Amino acid sequence: MTSWETFFNEWMPLLEAEMRAAVGEPAHPSERLFYGMLAYHLGWVDAQLQPARQDAGKRIRPMLCLLACAACGGDPAQALPAAAAIELLHNFSLIHDDIQDRSETRRGRPTVWALWGIAQAINAGDALFTIAHRALWRLRERGVPAKRILEIAERFDAACLMLTRGQHFDLAFESAERVTVAEYMAMIQGKTAALLGAATGIGARLADHPPGDLEAFGEALGMAFQIQDDLLGIWGDPAVTGKSAADDLRTRKKTLPVILAMERIPEFVERYRDPQTPLEILLRDLEHSGARAEAETMAALFTQQAMAALERVELRNPYGEALQDLARVLLSRTR
Amino acid sequence: MTSWETFFNEWMPLLEAEMRAAVGEPAHPSERLFYGMLAYHLGWVDAQLQPARQDAGKRIRPMLCLLACAACGGDPAQALPAAAAIELLHNFSLIHDDIQDRSETRRGRPTVWALWGIAQAINAGDALFTIAHRALWRLRERGVPAKRILEIAERFDAACLMLTRGQHFDLAFESAERVTVAEYMAMIQGKTAALLGAATGIGARLADHPPGDLEAFGEALGMAFQIQDDLLGIWGDPAVTGKSAADDLRTRKKTLPVILAMERIPEFVERYRDPQTPLEILLRDLEHSGARAEAETMAALFTQQAMAALERVELRNPYGEALQDLARVLLSRTR
Repeated sequence: MTSWETFFNEWMPLLEAEMRAAVGEPAHPSERLFYGMLAYHLGWVDAQLQPARQDAGKRIRPMLCLLACAACGGDPAQALPAAAAIELLHNFSLIHDDIQDRSETRRGRPTVWALWGIAQAINAGDALFTIAHRALWRLRERGVPAKRILEIAERFDAACLMLTRGQHFDLAFESAERVTVAEYMAMIQGKTAALLGAATGIGARLADHPPGDLEAFGEALGMAFQIQDDLLGIWGDPAVTGKSAADDLRTRKKTLPVILAMERIPEFVERYRDPQTPLEILLRDLEHSGARAEAETMAALFTQQAMAALERVELRNPYGEALQDLARVLLSRTR
Repeated sequence: MTSWETFFNEWMPLLEAEMRAAVGEPAHPSERLFYGMLAYHLGWVDAQLQPARQDAGKRIRPMLCLLACAACGGDPAQALPAAAAIELLHNFSLIHDDIQDRSETRRGRPTVWALWGIAQAINAGDALFTIAHRALWRLRERGVPAKRILEIAERFDAACLMLTRGQHFDLAFESAERVTVAEYMAMIQGKTAALLGAATGIGARLADHPPGDLEAFGEALGMAFQIQDDLLGIWGDPAVTGKSAADDLRTRKKTLPVILAMERIPEFVERYRDPQTPLEILLRDLEHSGARAEAETMAALFTQQAMAALERVELRNPYGEALQDLARVLLSRTR
């Protein structure tokens, strides 16, 4: 067992407890469904609101925050409220995402809107967004000075705004005829990199460590992670990803390899739009145009950038090594 | 011209400027639509994103915050970021409300979702929610100490959570067979009273004044205001309200007079559900059962409660009188 796994096993129950405390419980039976929708999305109860242990995701973002804090010499216990806030924010965005994408299932269960309707699901997301902010105020009880909490809250809200900006671009891409590589970069920077950068940066801040390089690490990690996700969405092993092969091509998603192929082969734009074009033709175009190779190069580039940023901080301790290990695992995943 | 009008005229341009500064502007042409949707909703641009001065609502909530601050001996300029945050929060909730209610127009213009679709409108609301929080951080530049800003942010987030809880109840009422008076009270407490209480309470806090009575004033004002809204939705003069007569009865909304009539006349439940029941019958039931009179008594009760809370603070200055005048005007409005 590598050291980041030990760290995860040690801190996961504490993180879950912190998240549950931040979400809170109904003060009155009439509030049961209001809190129930949130607990359902977070994997704590089933659709009948009965306690359950459901797959609720890997909690990568909060764990990066706690591990960054430890690696910078801080006490992860002090960072728990911020880690919880980050994970709750991520989950608010998933509830709204599922409505926007009309996704009826997430992690093998019906989504919140599929169970309770769009209007209530929008509201559940809003509630979780609020609760993510409230989670931050618990830093006070951990003895973090008011001024530092404010700095962290500002950093947190900057990431929130990037997130909504990234989502705006992502939604706009669906109907756009063409998307440039620059637009794609701005989109994933908001949708994925900003929150990972906030996670590691806030972890550093709570250890009283200059956050610059750790933020850069988190952001580059996020960029690499997202591009890799695009690659797996086309060439991932269905046995491992759990999706059908080339799923993102079938749904005509404008992922990075596709955007690159459009820049390289003008006719690809029309072929991709045409629902009749066989998958093999699209796959051949992506390969022959060099789009796949270029996307792979870009993923490698951001991976290097992430590792170099981490190198600069010179975290010579077991937590620093665990952070490196974790980054390597995330960037070499096959699903 | 009464004194609250003088105050409004003086502070409105400063409030608008603060709100614009908090929202910010696109740093790049690609962000034009992202910011444009927000500026459109706030009445600053038209649907083609060209500058315009549209009716954007009365800004009652932020003005209450500024006036409460002044009446408590504070400098309203210091409260501007908080007032802007409150109005932006209110507007975020309206964007999501319009989606949830499927309202295609607001203040005579198409709603954000009607123009740009549900997915982008959800996201625009999320962005405005974030920006409302960011607006608060501008209190730092006004010299408010970090500790006080944190207190205000906590109060603000408590109101946000009440808002989403109230909205949850409101949405649940649509499909509920019966709604109790207690459930109705909890709903309007969240949807209307919490934010008004936060507005006046935060104004007091920024004047270094104990916030209790001013919060109680804002909350009771909100309760009275909402019940009055229900009364006007049924008995308001169409020439004044701009809606058709008894509009809330036609749409079978579960407003307070209706809920009271259901408690008093068991058969009213069925008659209200039946779309064939003539309006005159419903109006007769509301009148004869005493439901109308009881709702009016409750509005009067909360009005008294608001005025008594304000009386307790003994704000013997022109701003305190303006606050009283404003409350009187709000509670005697006919539309």
